[in-house]
Amino acid sequence: MKVIVVGATGTLGKAVAEDLNKRHEVVEVGFSGGDVQVDITDLSSIRAMYEEIGAFDALVSATGDVHFGPLEDITQEQWKLGLNNKLMGQINLVMEGAKRVNDNGSFTLTSGIISKDPIRYGAAATTVCSAIEGFAASAALELPRGIRINVVSPTILEESVELFGAAFAGFEPVPAAKAALAFSKSVDGARSGQTFEVKGHT
Amino acid sequence: MKVIVVGATGTLGKAVAEDLNKRHEVVEVGFSGGDVQVDITDLSSIRAMYEEIGAFDALVSATGDVHFGPLEDITQEQWKLGLNNKLMGQINLVMEGAKRVNDNGSFTLTSGIISKDPIRYGAAATTVCSAIEGFAASAALELPRGIRINVVSPTILEESVELFGAAFAGFEPVPAAKAALAFSKSVDGARSGQTFEVKGHT
Repeated sequence: MKVIVVGATGTLGKAVAEDLNKRHEVVEVGFSGGDVQVDITDLSSIRAMYEEIGAFDALVSATGDVHFGPLEDITQEQWKLGLNNKLMGQINLVMEGAKRVNDNGSFTLTSGIISKDPIRYGAAATTVCSAIEGFAASAALELPRGIRINVVSPTILEESVELFGAAFAGFEPVPAAKAALAFSKSVDGARSGQTFEVKGHT
Repeated sequence: MKVIVVGATGTLGKAVAEDLNKRHEVVEVGFSGGDVQVDITDLSSIRAMYEEIGAFDALVSATGDVHFGPLEDITQEQWKLGLNNKLMGQINLVMEGAKRVNDNGSFTLTSGIISKDPIRYGAAATTVCSAIEGFAASAALELPRGIRINVVSPTILEESVELFGAAFAGFEPVPAAKAALAFSKSVDGARSGQTFEVKGHT
């Protein structure tokens, strides 16, 4: 299969691309790096990415910005960051990609464990992650030609503990290489409309 | 208690106001009708509503527009309708209201049963309803002064079967007066961060 990995230059995306690369041809997409570039907040950039890559069998999105900060301080612009980037960016990868992906292809998006296990300062992120999971569950009912869609909801990665660990106290971190398996489960598996959670024991 | 019901002129809001009115002083808010008017997509209109009403103990939102239609036909504007209106409109009622509500007050928002039980043509709505439930679960962790927040997720109302019944085939409708009880449970109860589902046997 030919698999597009958007966010392939990030901590998670790199591990996802590495695991998929064992069995598939991977096209690594980044915002500024990678084989192909895309700005997921820009519909014309998404279309240009698909034009450049041509026929494909699966797309994995391991990207998306969202604001973290105290609830009472979240501004309208900070709410919109997550809605425009992590939410609508990933939705638009699917909306545009569904017209172009091969029959029986798939889309795998990324949310985050705080959709189900919220933390302080995570209101904007939990809102967006929940929305992504709802989108996949409902879009799965209507995607034509055997096209599947799933979400991976990872806990904090071992590689990100230094940066974000304080906010995730008590969440057992998981190595990116383990989180990557959930994406492979989605791409190589048969299920659709699911959220695959990746978490430690807590 | 003094309870603001936004959307009090709608099918659901009318029943909610009626039930709350048995025990509380209700301020009925509508887009064009009611005691006070508000456009929830306009932050200054939300602020004006709170200024006009003054001190209050609880706000119930039984309002919010979102697009229904085939997934592949949903335009950027139609995605934004739900995000700006039903999602950010309700979030902003909370963001602005949390600064003004009395200690130990509460907010109760409305999602919809398709957040958990999606239907054809409901992708934009399921996305938004899931987001609302995520928002409440996370906001509950940070609201100060004993302020609570919950969501009510109602199935199709008996009163709406004629309009929307075809899309909800097999969903047992519930009378608006029964759905209203879930809002009272939130307002008069003690729980926070919850989604109270209102559904029939199916």
